[in-house]
Amino acid sequence: MKTQIKGNYVIGDSDAVSSLYESGGFGRLRDDSLQLRFVEAAYLLSRGKISVLKNGAELDFDAFIQFAAQQEEFFELKYIVYKDLKERGYYVQSSATDFRVYPRGGKPGKGSAKSYVYVRSERMPILLSELLGLINEAQNVRKQFILAVVDEESDITFYDVKRADAVGRFEGGMSAPYPAEAEKETPVKAVLFKERVILADQETADLLYNRAFFGKKMDDERLLLSLPEALYLAESGVLELYEMDGKKLSNEAFSENAARIDSEFLKKYVIYKELKEKGFVPKTGFKFGTHFRVYRKVESLDKIPHSEFLLNAVSPEYEFKLPATSGAIRLANSVRKRMIYAADLGGRREYVEFERIKM
Amino acid sequence: MKTQIKGNYVIGDSDAVSSLYESGGFGRLRDDSLQLRFVEAAYLLSRGKISVLKNGAELDFDAFIQFAAQQEEFFELKYIVYKDLKERGYYVQSSATDFRVYPRGGKPGKGSAKSYVYVRSERMPILLSELLGLINEAQNVRKQFILAVVDEESDITFYDVKRADAVGRFEGGMSAPYPAEAEKETPVKAVLFKERVILADQETADLLYNRAFFGKKMDDERLLLSLPEALYLAESGVLELYEMDGKKLSNEAFSENAARIDSEFLKKYVIYKELKEKGFVPKTGFKFGTHFRVYRKVESLDKIPHSEFLLNAVSPEYEFKLPATSGAIRLANSVRKRMIYAADLGGRREYVEFERIKM
Repeated sequence: MKTQIKGNYVIGDSDAVSSLYESGGFGRLRDDSLQLRFVEAAYLLSRGKISVLKNGAELDFDAFIQFAAQQEEFFELKYIVYKDLKERGYYVQSSATDFRVYPRGGKPGKGSAKSYVYVRSERMPILLSELLGLINEAQNVRKQFILAVVDEESDITFYDVKRADAVGRFEGGMSAPYPAEAEKETPVKAVLFKERVILADQETADLLYNRAFFGKKMDDERLLLSLPEALYLAESGVLELYEMDGKKLSNEAFSENAARIDSEFLKKYVIYKELKEKGFVPKTGFKFGTHFRVYRKVESLDKIPHSEFLLNAVSPEYEFKLPATSGAIRLANSVRKRMIYAADLGGRREYVEFERIKM
Repeated sequence: MKTQIKGNYVIGDSDAVSSLYESGGFGRLRDDSLQLRFVEAAYLLSRGKISVLKNGAELDFDAFIQFAAQQEEFFELKYIVYKDLKERGYYVQSSATDFRVYPRGGKPGKGSAKSYVYVRSERMPILLSELLGLINEAQNVRKQFILAVVDEESDITFYDVKRADAVGRFEGGMSAPYPAEAEKETPVKAVLFKERVILADQETADLLYNRAFFGKKMDDERLLLSLPEALYLAESGVLELYEMDGKKLSNEAFSENAARIDSEFLKKYVIYKELKEKGFVPKTGFKFGTHFRVYRKVESLDKIPHSEFLLNAVSPEYEFKLPATSGAIRLANSVRKRMIYAADLGGRREYVEFERIKM
C-alpha cells in the first residue's frame, strides 16, 4: 500500500483508511485520507505493510528513519518505545504527551486510553516543574502518567509517576508527634555536640525513644538526636538547646548552625516537619542513600515495622538525573518500599512517587 | 580508680596497668603507667571504671566528652564506633587508622589484629586517592580495611573495602571479546543514529548479539549498539562507522562525538575496554543507577546469568559522597551483586570493591 510523505506526516488513501485505521487503529482521519505519524509509518514500513514515497521516490526503512530522525526531535526514542508497546499488543495513539495507550482489550473507538506515555532518553534530565506539569495534565483527564526512559542500550524502563496521595490519603498512623508527657513546664536541656545533639535526661530520653522512635540511645541516660529531630522537639517546646560551653542556643541560631553542618538541612527540615505533622515517623535514609526512610507508625521498639517509603527532599528547581533516579527507585522497590521525592513549593509541598512497572 | 588528663592522653597508675591493661586490653604502657586515649577513657568513665581528674578537679562524663570533643578532631565519631565495637565484644586498640580490631577470641598480646577500622561521618566525602592509600596501608600488613560510617542518627554502617582482585583473580570467563567470525575482510558498516548505532547486517548482528551479548535487536536484521560497544567493535576492526548522511567517521571522530553526547563517555570507555579484555561482558547499569552491570560470562542468550557486579567508572580525583555510595552498595548487595568503583590512574586501572558487613 503506497503512502506519501507530506510535511510531518505520511499520508495514505482511502484503502489505507479501511485497512490501517479501521482495523489496526493506526493514524488519524483527515478528510478522506489517513494521516500517519513518522513512528507509525516506520513501524508499518518495517512490517512491510506500506511503502513510503518522498517526492515520488520510494524510501527503504533505513532511509526513511534517517529522514524522520532529521525531521522530528527524539524520533528514534519514540520509535523504540512505540515499537515495544505495539509488540506487547497495545493500541497506541500519538498525542501531545507522546503516546496514549489503551488498556488491554481497548482500542481507539472502543473505550478510552488509560495512560499517557512520555518518552525520554536517560541522558536528558527532567525538571521537577516539568514533571509536575505532565502529571497534572494526565491527572486532569484521569489518565495514568507513564515515563518511558530509553537507556543507552535502547532498553526501556517504564515508571508510573504520580502524586503520593493519588493512591489514598498520604498520612501516617501516629496519634501524636511525641508523647505528651515529654512536654514539661520547663523544657529539658539538650546540647549541640558537633553534628548531633545529646539529651541527658533519662526520663525524657526514654519517652522520646521508646514511644516515638526519636534518636538513638547513647547509654542508659542519654539520647543522641539528629539535627532535624532536635530542632523539631525544640520548636515543639520539649527541649531547650544549648552549646557545649553552656550558652543557650535559640532555635534560629541552631537552625543556622545546622545549615552550616549540612547544606541540605533547611530543605530537609521543611519536609521532616510536615511528615511529623502528617503522623509519619521519618528517620534517616542513609543506609538507602536517601534523606529519609519513613514509617507509617511505630507502636513499640520491640516490633519496628518495615519503613513504608524512602524520600528525598529536593528544591523546586530540582532536575531528575535519570540514572540516579533509576537507582533510587530500583533500590526502594527491591526492598518493597515506595520512592518519593518531596519539594516545598512555597507554602505547598508536593510529594511525587515513582514506581517501576512492567507494561 | 583515679586517672589524670595529661595532654592528649588520660594517664593511670600501676593499679590501672594491672586491672585495665592486663585484663581488659585498654590503653598502652608508658614506663610504669597506663596511657589511655580519650575514647578509651570516656568508655571506662561511662561504665564507672575510672574517675578522670583535670588539674586536680574531677570531670563527670558529660564534662569529659565535651572537653575531649574540643581537644580531638572527630572524637565524637570515634567514641560512637569504639563503644559499639566494645559492646559487640571486640578488643579494640587505637592506631593511626583510628582502630585496630582483634578477631573474636583474640586480644592484644594474643594473636594479632585482624582489621583496621577507619571512622568517618556520612557528611565528609572521601577522596578515591585517600581511600586507596588507606587500603594500601592495610593490605601491606595483611589487614582487612573497614570503613565505619556514622550517619546523622549516630548509627554505624560498616564496609569492607578492598581491591576487587583481593578475593581472587579479577577476570571474566569469555574466551574472546567477540566471535572471530564477525571479523570480515571488509568490516561491516554501522551508522551513528543520534545517541546509538545501527548495524544493519543481519549475519554480523546475529553473531554479535547471540554469541557475545552485544547490543539489542531492533528487528530481525538490525542491531542497536551503545556508544562504547560500537567504538570497541570499530577499534577491533569488526565495524566501520558512518554518519547518517553516509560520511565515514574515523574512530577518533566517533569518540569525540560520543563524548559530546555523554560527558562521561571517555572515562567509561577506558574501563569498558579493559573489562572486555579481561573476559567480562559489560552492559549498561542504567536500571541500577550505575554505569555498568557486568557478567562473568554469557554463553547463550537463552540462559543469561545474573550479572556479577555493578560498576561505576570514576575519575582519579573522584570524591565518594557517602550517602550516594551507601545507596549504590545497598542496591548491589540487595540484588546479590558486588559493587565496584573503577578509575584509570594513567596506565593503571584500580578496581575498588565495597561490601557492607555486619560486625
